[in-house]
Amino acid sequence: MTVTVLFAAGEALWPEYAPHLRAAFDEAGLDAALVTEAEPGAVDYIVYAPGSPLQDFTPYTRCRAVLNLWAGVERIVGNPTLTQPLCRMVDPGLTEGMVEYVTGHVLRHHLGMDRYIKGAPGWQQIVPPLARERVVAMLGLGELGLACARALKALSFAVEGWSRSGKTGLDIPAHHGEAGLEALLRRAEIVVTLLPRTAETENLLDARRLAWLPQGAVIVNPGRGALIDDDALLAALDSGALGHATLDVFRIEPLPEDHPFRHHPGVTVTPHIAADTRASSAARVVAENIRRGETGEPLLHRVDLTRGY
Amino acid sequence: MTVTVLFAAGEALWPEYAPHLRAAFDEAGLDAALVTEAEPGAVDYIVYAPGSPLQDFTPYTRCRAVLNLWAGVERIVGNPTLTQPLCRMVDPGLTEGMVEYVTGHVLRHHLGMDRYIKGAPGWQQIVPPLARERVVAMLGLGELGLACARALKALSFAVEGWSRSGKTGLDIPAHHGEAGLEALLRRAEIVVTLLPRTAETENLLDARRLAWLPQGAVIVNPGRGALIDDDALLAALDSGALGHATLDVFRIEPLPEDHPFRHHPGVTVTPHIAADTRASSAARVVAENIRRGETGEPLLHRVDLTRGY
Repeated sequence: MTVTVLFAAGEALWPEYAPHLRAAFDEAGLDAALVTEAEPGAVDYIVYAPGSPLQDFTPYTRCRAVLNLWAGVERIVGNPTLTQPLCRMVDPGLTEGMVEYVTGHVLRHHLGMDRYIKGAPGWQQIVPPLARERVVAMLGLGELGLACARALKALSFAVEGWSRSGKTGLDIPAHHGEAGLEALLRRAEIVVTLLPRTAETENLLDARRLAWLPQGAVIVNPGRGALIDDDALLAALDSGALGHATLDVFRIEPLPEDHPFRHHPGVTVTPHIAADTRASSAARVVAENIRRGETGEPLLHRVDLTRGY
Repeated sequence: MTVTVLFAAGEALWPEYAPHLRAAFDEAGLDAALVTEAEPGAVDYIVYAPGSPLQDFTPYTRCRAVLNLWAGVERIVGNPTLTQPLCRMVDPGLTEGMVEYVTGHVLRHHLGMDRYIKGAPGWQQIVPPLARERVVAMLGLGELGLACARALKALSFAVEGWSRSGKTGLDIPAHHGEAGLEALLRRAEIVVTLLPRTAETENLLDARRLAWLPQGAVIVNPGRGALIDDDALLAALDSGALGHATLDVFRIEPLPEDHPFRHHPGVTVTPHIAADTRASSAARVVAENIRRGETGEPLLHRVDLTRGY
């Protein structure tokens, strides 16, 4: 019997995703119809993305899973009408892109590249320490954080992780809780924030915790804009306590041209490009989850609605 | 019997290196006297660096090895008075620093970081290809080139190597000869030059070979300034055939302030900082070679004087 898959990820994504999804359904041997409109009671799966006009999941009584195209689920997870299983996207292409962004910007700050890119005159040979002598804090040890931490470890950085819940048995030294965060931040010269956005992680890096960082420390935030208190960050940069912040995510996107981050010499703004879902690999993940749903196997990357991620 | 080690690497390096060398000699169990002056006929080993006042090796009749503190040997290898075994420095710290520089700048160009570091306005989301889709050419597969190629491979770059002589059995696809160079350069979006400077590698990247590169390709040269024809490089940048060049080494160092590289928007100049010998780890390599010389074991990193590296 044909499975009905409602593409509710928005019109903008349809031209890119539709051919990849259909190809992935074929590849997975699924008899699935990808549609943009359907009788709610006839829909078996919903392909979703933030910004979708679909907000009321109540009538989708037969829907066996809502499959999010992006890693972040904070704009859907609190929806009270959502009773269906929700799956995040864990796109291998997305993880690879994030690892490249994080290792690139960590190396950039480690090596002090900016002065040369901006054209430093003279011949002042400032030789950086070796990566093994540089403590990097990875805040967040989920799929993305752990992949980035491992790539930095492979480059010999002294990387240590932190997560709210505490993780054990990792190949990266891991801290947790408030005391663990303080112990790590007091030694971290470079901090990468890859936590999910939840009530507990909002403004995690506030004025008090930013003050734990060593003089001149650098922050790279490709996670969520709300993880850092914007005003506290600007104050720490202005005072010279922090050396730089490279930000890919913001409370308001696109970041307004008149936002103080735009013209601050201590801030590098990238336009939410650290990790982008690649349609080809994401479509295969969607197809695999539909195949699992049909055979009764556990869904991949299912979100715990009580935890929020 | 005490071994006499002449420190002929220049006065400037003495304060930094002398304590590390003495500590390394002790650590290796060597009964060695480190001196800055000695009767030439009484010298057992010479610690050397480019710029040393010592140019005539003839009277050092008992000297069992000349131990260079740096990787490059082009300023000593052609010295006709040198009949003693010559060893290059292969400092683990130097290799690590080079890997960090190369991976950092390759990722920088791969990710198109410069536009954001210089403060691009707007919100144009240019998502780069994944590293696996980016062909990187590593010209030179010696200690440094191979270590860098492996680090780039670990980051998923489509890295392929080239060496003049041809190397087999590597874990990196390797080309050689003129035809191999052309085949590789025609596909390479990022080129890293880590060849030794010899008569054969001088101006290896001349106008003809630079023209093989795809439109917008980028060059990273932390090897030797003479590997690239300066004028041909500037012409290729001016015409837009090449996208950028990041150069750490130059025919004349320090690079004069009025050199065209200094103010060219397509050139990033770094002041010969890609890899710096670290006194602590280099001293251990020197001590190990003296230990080997005393026990009759083969010396590490011995230079083939006929090949020049």
